[in-house]
Amino acid sequence: MNANWTWHGGGIEAAKRHFGGEDWIDLSTGINPHPWPGAAALAFDWQRLPDPEALAQLEAIAASFFGIEAGHVCAVPGSEIGLRLTGMLIGGPARHIAPSYRTHGEMIAGSVPAGADTASGQGGTLILANPNNPDGRTIDAAAMRALLRRRGPDGWLLVDEAFADADPAASIAASVDDRERLVVFRSFGKFFGLAGVRLGFVVAPRAIVAALRERLGAWPLSAAAIAIGTAAYADTGWIDAARARLPKDAAALDAMLMRLGFAPTGSSPLFRLIDVDDAQALFDRLARRAILTRPFAEQPRWLRLGLPADAATLARLEAVLADG
Amino acid sequence: MNANWTWHGGGIEAAKRHFGGEDWIDLSTGINPHPWPGAAALAFDWQRLPDPEALAQLEAIAASFFGIEAGHVCAVPGSEIGLRLTGMLIGGPARHIAPSYRTHGEMIAGSVPAGADTASGQGGTLILANPNNPDGRTIDAAAMRALLRRRGPDGWLLVDEAFADADPAASIAASVDDRERLVVFRSFGKFFGLAGVRLGFVVAPRAIVAALRERLGAWPLSAAAIAIGTAAYADTGWIDAARARLPKDAAALDAMLMRLGFAPTGSSPLFRLIDVDDAQALFDRLARRAILTRPFAEQPRWLRLGLPADAATLARLEAVLADG
Repeated sequence: MNANWTWHGGGIEAAKRHFGGEDWIDLSTGINPHPWPGAAALAFDWQRLPDPEALAQLEAIAASFFGIEAGHVCAVPGSEIGLRLTGMLIGGPARHIAPSYRTHGEMIAGSVPAGADTASGQGGTLILANPNNPDGRTIDAAAMRALLRRRGPDGWLLVDEAFADADPAASIAASVDDRERLVVFRSFGKFFGLAGVRLGFVVAPRAIVAALRERLGAWPLSAAAIAIGTAAYADTGWIDAARARLPKDAAALDAMLMRLGFAPTGSSPLFRLIDVDDAQALFDRLARRAILTRPFAEQPRWLRLGLPADAATLARLEAVLADG
Repeated sequence: MNANWTWHGGGIEAAKRHFGGEDWIDLSTGINPHPWPGAAALAFDWQRLPDPEALAQLEAIAASFFGIEAGHVCAVPGSEIGLRLTGMLIGGPARHIAPSYRTHGEMIAGSVPAGADTASGQGGTLILANPNNPDGRTIDAAAMRALLRRRGPDGWLLVDEAFADADPAASIAASVDDRERLVVFRSFGKFFGLAGVRLGFVVAPRAIVAALRERLGAWPLSAAAIAIGTAAYADTGWIDAARARLPKDAAALDAMLMRLGFAPTGSSPLFRLIDVDDAQALFDRLARRAILTRPFAEQPRWLRLGLPADAATLARLEAVLADG
C-alpha cells in the first residue's frame, strides 16, 4: 500500500495523480466537514507582528473553553508541534498506547508501545489519546483520573484530546494543576474544521508552559490563527450547534454502514473505524471511485472513514461500498 | 523606561493606552512599510491540513531565492522558532555578538555575549546577525567565510540573515553544505513586510534539517504562510522593485536626520540607529506625538527608527525631531 495514504490522512493531491478521477471526496481525516464559517469574513493584519496582548486574549478564551485558568494554557502553531516539544521536555522512559496517532510514538525517544489494557495497570509516563484515534475508544474522566494517580512518583500522564471538543465530558483538561504531572493537548483544527490554520494548545503545569514559551518565542502564531481562534472559541452558538449536529451525522453514517453489514466503532463523531477482511482492497476500490479513506500499514483489516459532509456524499460512499 | 518598548518593537497597543493620541506611526520595527501586496487577493484553504507537497514547493522556491538546494531548507513558523530549536540542537558552549537581537542570547543555554571585534578572532560556536540589528553593521560574504573557517574543530557559525533580503550580496546562505558547520536563518516577514504571516527558514546541513523536521512535525506552517510565501518569493518583479526602492527611502530618512544633526548608522535600508544624549527622553517626546520608536534598556543613548512609509510620515517624524 502506498505510504502516502497509510502515513497520515490528507494526501489527496497524490491520490488524484495516482488514481485519476474527479470530484474527490476526502474522508481520510477526522476533520469536521462543516467548518466554523467565520474565517472568510475576518480581515487579518499580516503586516505587523501579532500583538502579545492578542495572543494572551486567545489563550484566555481557549482556557475558558477548556475549563482551566489561562496560566495553564500555551498556544502552539498546531498541536503536532506541542506534542513534540512537550515530549522533549518530559523525556523518558515512557510508554505510548498503540495503535494511536503516529506522533505519540515519536514524542519521547525510546517510548515503548503498549496495548490499552496492559498500560492501564502500570505506572510511569504514559502517552495516550482520548478519544483515541483511529478506534475512537473513549476513557471517561473518572477513569482518566485513576490513570493519573497510577503514574507513580515520577510518571507523567500526557493526554492528546485532539478529538475531545465534540463531547467535552471525557476531558481531563480541568484537572491540570501545578501539583499534577498531567499535560493535555487540544487541537483547534478538527472540531472547528479548520486544520489549515495550524492552532493547538498545551494545557500544563505552569513550569511546562514557561519552558514551552521559551522554546517557541514570543510570536508562535500567525495573525490569522489568533483572529480565527479568538472568534471561533467565542462562538458558543456555533459550538452548541456543532455538538448537536455531529452525533446525528455520525449516526447516519453508522446506520448506513450497518445496513451494509459493517460494524463501525468509535465514540468521536468525526470518524468511524471499520474492520474488513482486506482493507487495502477496499481502500483501492473507494479510491478508484474518487473517495479517499485512511488505511493503516500495520493494521491490514482497518479502514477509517471521516464523516461525510452531507446526504449526497453519504450516498456516494454507500453506492461504492454496496457495489463490492 | 517601560519594558513594553525596550523588550521588542511592535508594542503599539500598549503605547496607545499609555500615551493616548491617535493616528500612530509605528517605527518600532524593521518591517518593510510597503508590504508585498498580493496577500489580500489570495484565497486560503483553511479546512484541510496543508499538503506536504505544497510545503515542499514553498521550500523549493525559497531555496532558489536563497541560492541553495532545497534539501538544505526547512520552513519554520517564524524564524524566532527556528533560532530557538536550532540553538537547542547545536548546544553549547557558545558566544553571541551583542548587542543584537535578544533571542540570540537565549538560543543556547550559557551563551556568552561578545563584542563584534573581540569575537572575530576566536573559535568556537558563534551566533550573529548579518546585517546586525539594531546597528545595521554588515559583514561581507568573504569576511563571513573567514569567520566560518575560524570556528575550529567543533564550533558552528549561526548567522541570522533576517535583514539580508534587501541586499543579498552579503548573504552566506549559498555556502551552507553538509560538510560545513554553518546555519543561516532567513525571515519572510521583514523584507516582504508581512510579519504577521509567521514564516522563516533554517538553511542548514541536511542532518540539522532532518532534526528540525522531527521537532516540528509534518505541518509546521499555516495554509496562509504556504500560499503567501510561495507567491511572494516567486514575484521577482516586486522583489526587484523593493530592492530598488528601499535604499532610496532610507537615503531620504538619512538626509532628513543629518539635516537635523543626527548621525544615523546602519546598512539595512529597513531601519536606522541614532545615538543621542538621552534616548528615553526622545522616545517619550516622539511617543507623546504618536510616533513609536525602539529604545534599548541597556543602551540609553540608542534609538532605532524604522523606515517611514511615505513623505508625509517622514515629514511628521521630522517635525517632532526638529521641535526639541
